[in-house]
Amino acid sequence: MAALFCFAASFLMTSLSPLQVSCSDRDPLHDFCVADLHCPLLNNNDYSCKPYPNVTIDDFVFSGLLTPLDPSQSTSGAIATPGDVNTFPGLHTQGFSFAQLDFVERGLISPHTHPRASEFVYILHGDLYAGFVDAGNRVFARVYHAGEVMIFPRGLIHWQLNVGRGRASALAVLNSEKPGFQIISLSMFGSSIADEVLEKTFRLEAETVDRLVKFFTPIAEVVKGN
Amino acid sequence: MAALFCFAASFLMTSLSPLQVSCSDRDPLHDFCVADLHCPLLNNNDYSCKPYPNVTIDDFVFSGLLTPLDPSQSTSGAIATPGDVNTFPGLHTQGFSFAQLDFVERGLISPHTHPRASEFVYILHGDLYAGFVDAGNRVFARVYHAGEVMIFPRGLIHWQLNVGRGRASALAVLNSEKPGFQIISLSMFGSSIADEVLEKTFRLEAETVDRLVKFFTPIAEVVKGN
Amino acid sequence: MAALFCFAASFLMTSLSPLQVSCSDRDPLHDFCVADLHCPLLNNNDYSCKPYPNVTIDDFVFSGLLTPLDPSQSTSGAIATPGDVNTFPGLHTQGFSFAQLDFVERGLISPHTHPRASEFVYILHGDLYAGFVDAGNRVFARVYHAGEVMIFPRGLIHWQLNVGRGRASALAVLNSEKPGFQIISLSMFGSSIADEVLEKTFRLEAETVDRLVKFFTPIAEVVKGN
Amino acid sequence: MAALFCFAASFLMTSLSPLQVSCSDRDPLHDFCVADLHCPLLNNNDYSCKPYPNVTIDDFVFSGLLTPLDPSQSTSGAIATPGDVNTFPGLHTQGFSFAQLDFVERGLISPHTHPRASEFVYILHGDLYAGFVDAGNRVFARVYHAGEVMIFPRGLIHWQLNVGRGRASALAVLNSEKPGFQIISLSMFGSSIADEVLEKTFRLEAETVDRLVKFFTPIAEVVKGN
Amino acid sequence: MAALFCFAASFLMTSLSPLQVSCSDRDPLHDFCVADLHCPLLNNNDYSCKPYPNVTIDDFVFSGLLTPLDPSQSTSGAIATPGDVNTFPGLHTQGFSFAQLDFVERGLISPHTHPRASEFVYILHGDLYAGFVDAGNRVFARVYHAGEVMIFPRGLIHWQLNVGRGRASALAVLNSEKPGFQIISLSMFGSSIADEVLEKTFRLEAETVDRLVKFFTPIAEVVKGN
Amino acid sequence: MAALFCFAASFLMTSLSPLQVSCSDRDPLHDFCVADLHCPLLNNNDYSCKPYPNVTIDDFVFSGLLTPLDPSQSTSGAIATPGDVNTFPGLHTQGFSFAQLDFVERGLISPHTHPRASEFVYILHGDLYAGFVDAGNRVFARVYHAGEVMIFPRGLIHWQLNVGRGRASALAVLNSEKPGFQIISLSMFGSSIADEVLEKTFRLEAETVDRLVKFFTPIAEVVKGN
Repeated sequence: MAALFCFAASFLMTSLSPLQVSCSDRDPLHDFCVADLHCPLLNNNDYSCKPYPNVTIDDFVFSGLLTPLDPSQSTSGAIATPGDVNTFPGLHTQGFSFAQLDFVERGLISPHTHPRASEFVYILHGDLYAGFVDAGNRVFARVYHAGEVMIFPRGLIHWQLNVGRGRASALAVLNSEKPGFQIISLSMFGSSIADEVLEKTFRLEAETVDRLVKFFTPIAEVVKGN
Repeated sequence: MAALFCFAASFLMTSLSPLQVSCSDRDPLHDFCVADLHCPLLNNNDYSCKPYPNVTIDDFVFSGLLTPLDPSQSTSGAIATPGDVNTFPGLHTQGFSFAQLDFVERGLISPHTHPRASEFVYILHGDLYAGFVDAGNRVFARVYHAGEVMIFPRGLIHWQLNVGRGRASALAVLNSEKPGFQIISLSMFGSSIADEVLEKTFRLEAETVDRLVKFFTPIAEVVKGN
Repeated sequence: MAALFCFAASFLMTSLSPLQVSCSDRDPLHDFCVADLHCPLLNNNDYSCKPYPNVTIDDFVFSGLLTPLDPSQSTSGAIATPGDVNTFPGLHTQGFSFAQLDFVERGLISPHTHPRASEFVYILHGDLYAGFVDAGNRVFARVYHAGEVMIFPRGLIHWQLNVGRGRASALAVLNSEKPGFQIISLSMFGSSIADEVLEKTFRLEAETVDRLVKFFTPIAEVVKGN
Repeated sequence: MAALFCFAASFLMTSLSPLQVSCSDRDPLHDFCVADLHCPLLNNNDYSCKPYPNVTIDDFVFSGLLTPLDPSQSTSGAIATPGDVNTFPGLHTQGFSFAQLDFVERGLISPHTHPRASEFVYILHGDLYAGFVDAGNRVFARVYHAGEVMIFPRGLIHWQLNVGRGRASALAVLNSEKPGFQIISLSMFGSSIADEVLEKTFRLEAETVDRLVKFFTPIAEVVKGN
Repeated sequence: MAALFCFAASFLMTSLSPLQVSCSDRDPLHDFCVADLHCPLLNNNDYSCKPYPNVTIDDFVFSGLLTPLDPSQSTSGAIATPGDVNTFPGLHTQGFSFAQLDFVERGLISPHTHPRASEFVYILHGDLYAGFVDAGNRVFARVYHAGEVMIFPRGLIHWQLNVGRGRASALAVLNSEKPGFQIISLSMFGSSIADEVLEKTFRLEAETVDRLVKFFTPIAEVVKGN
Repeated sequence: MAALFCFAASFLMTSLSPLQVSCSDRDPLHDFCVADLHCPLLNNNDYSCKPYPNVTIDDFVFSGLLTPLDPSQSTSGAIATPGDVNTFPGLHTQGFSFAQLDFVERGLISPHTHPRASEFVYILHGDLYAGFVDAGNRVFARVYHAGEVMIFPRGLIHWQLNVGRGRASALAVLNSEKPGFQIISLSMFGSSIADEVLEKTFRLEAETVDRLVKFFTPIAEVVKGN
């Protein structure tokens, strides 16, 4: 219904008179474009801007981290509660996305990359063993603690493992609205790449590859949303 | 001594025999440039990169927020403990700067701008009345609480006031290594702008302007580092 | 009527047969996108491009500075006659906006910022006392004269005061189509920021703040277009 | 018909229920935007993205160079078979365009510029005399051969002449999706610039200019698509 | 002597104690980098920043347009008095260059391109016939007058011809510090491109090409600075 | 010796009499910066520009692909012969790097990412099974043939496997001078990440991880250059 209204407001009502629809204002004052989640994505996958008079401070405040997801529901024992444009429309055009990371003991945020962002992580509580690998296959990793900050350079494979007692949580901030996100294990073993490629890449026997593909493919399906 | 060594290593020792100095390696693998704080700024105010073999994970971890500055020492009752390239060299080229903000009760981070960055703020504890003003002179402000996030759009005047009981603290992350920083009150009344401009700008009488200039000029001097 | 035609041309007529509407051409030759002011803004606040066959040299010529606004109509004695996309559609995507500044004697273009542009000013006639403040609260200001040029660095607070005899006028060119524009006095005292913030920011008594808010709020309303 | 369907799918059917159209999905996973050539250009001359479920690997493979254009059909004896967004929609947003260049003996790709791209050229077979001119009017040119690479810096006038025996062909890759393209001879003599400008620019007599204008104008018309 | 001092200050004196040289300050407050013309270009052709304490408002004011060059000294009857980093160091990093254009009657600023900038032109007095050609070989040109503004889109060939009575002058502002500059006639006939290329490009006979090369080569040499 | 000369020329000789060194020219005409491989990298890991008078067309031509590396020497049966700034200095600042890829039968360019570039691949001869995985863990892959082009979107994991008869070769062009390069297998198993992370990431037993680490670590060492 919301989308229907949006289309009606934007396009069809214009054939009726007088023009009162949101997109007809010509306002040079905007310093932001709050994503209008009641409208479909534009054809080029961009967001419509919420009409300026309807924007309020609440568009710029996010309360979703007060009710984080439960890491014990994740197979890896760690989960991200995201703040991105789809949950926090004021982020649109501001160059940020972020997440709260929650871990059970020994929970792992699996190695992954963000092709279009660097990452800032602040530990809210607990102790994480975390790091990244650079293009020279050199690892930079150590344990860090509540109140400390770690930076992961743009585009490099990185991970976080809870090595402290009990749960841990951290705040991750990325400097792109669409940082990209590619989980190594799911990309490799959950995506139907030909077995020959996987066997040669990881020097694994056919049956091991087969087992991994069987394990990761359904998880990847969940991420894909099928 | 450190700077002397750096110059010697970089330039003068090259007239001596074999070239072993850091800047002579030609290494195509770098995905980062950790600022080398032992060397002076380059002539174009850029930082030298720490020699690659000397870079460690410790360059990417920052512990400075464990010992934040004391807001009761500030005339406005609020203070920022910064994490920028000068205190955290791994930030260089990664597109971030950040700070912990600490407030006494009713403490104020005074209205200011960051011309080159948007700002993400997460409240660690307490309650802040915060907001920004857009180019149409419309204010977007409200109280938000521990665990909530607020976004200040790039370039706009914004502030934070502790309106809760007792102290408050927050984590601010900016998406530029050099966001710029201009405090409105100090810029206007602490910078020796001609009185006529100040009187006309703020519709204030000469004696009020005079009082404000006397108050803010020495504070501005401290910021300037004189 | 114009907007109605545009919607009809763009969307609704497509349900009729043959496709002759402007947006159906697939033309790889465009080196510009002249804003089509007869169409509403797109949903993401971007401008439609005028159909290529309709573009003429007149889209790239602006005569509006021949009839500048009258500075004696402004409370501050100075006024800007703007050349931006809304008055000069050929500017769209070319990275410029500009204005003629006209001043009565002692007229003031009040301190303001452009978060997204540097500013070039050429004095057409008269003498201006102008300058900017940097992030170290250091002022850079002096009188300059007809035929001289001053540069205001990106994002910094700056102003212009006519200190010569009689009127003055200048040409200001900004290197962004949407430079942003924030007037300090109106942003602070015309935007309904809580009084406590204003009192603490400027060390002013409640009644002075109250007077300033009463003075600046209606002016800010005019800018806001209410 | 295709465009009609697209409009119908995107806009008009939304007044019907239920919402099944492509642009209604809100999918944060896209790392690309394959141009949907069945839809008209958007009003700001951007391309619609092909709906994500319809994207296949075939959108990222281009076979058009297997059947290059025939250089003997060109008045200059050389011709470019382009791979741009209109023939290869997977290029959209990836920062590339390219072409195969085919030459008869002594065929010439006439001097031209690409304002928004550098150019990489690899000779598939034959020998080319090629080069560019910089802003100091210094020419950089020589013959190069099959298997060799030449780079033309961004924005500078450059050309390619087949100086070997028989035909030649090369692969040119540009690092922009819309590099721009301006052929010097056609721009100057095929575009109806006033004769006085042409005579003074090239120090040519009126009759020579007249002859050149007569020769180049119809060729330019073909490029223009009239 | 100045350069010698600069080297000494920057590098050699560092072997002496104590460190007082300009490039040793570590100052996070800079919002600009005024080019230090007393120092040689850095090895990567960038400019050194003038030491912050030495920067004054005079670095941001340019008086060179008060004494423009004389267009009657130019073979084409028109000349540009430039304001670029080499004459106005405060422009550095601010994204502008500019020039005053002066014309004798029928004087011509010959067709040229700026690969990296759009151009804004304001006529100070007189009447100019000016225009540009786009990638479709379509010309956009007309006469415009004192007080009017014309925009030349980025990268396209454009020119200006004085068609009024007596001299004319105009102010041109480019939105890049290094816009690039390529004069068509000099690039083609003044740069030693092989005659075969020129003959085929412009459909000119060998003797005409020979005459043009003889005419333009010495002019190009002057631009080149040999 | 070369580096010694460079230092001497750049810095030390300036204390001697007249300044004739390369970096003392102040030349506004450069449209390129050819990397000067005889000089060490600058302290910020940028390249010095070759002195303008010494630049020739040979700096813009690369012949290294005429003698490609031998894929039978590689453990994976495939090898890249690179054209980057270190082998082709004219590429500097032009936004390209490239490589010829050579494969024995069933040879594999192992899954990897380029965080800062899209990739264009043209098959010179043979048949490759190639593809990429997007952030939704969806694979896009197929066999393509000599004369065809494939595009790999920026930042995504991709690979190439020779599935034809005999050897294959291809030309890969990346639209960044420093695209970044991270090989998945070496990053994960050749970089000393803690075993617990690897076991949990890939659901492999300790002994398998141990075997893979033993296999990949020495290969990674070679890449690292130790």
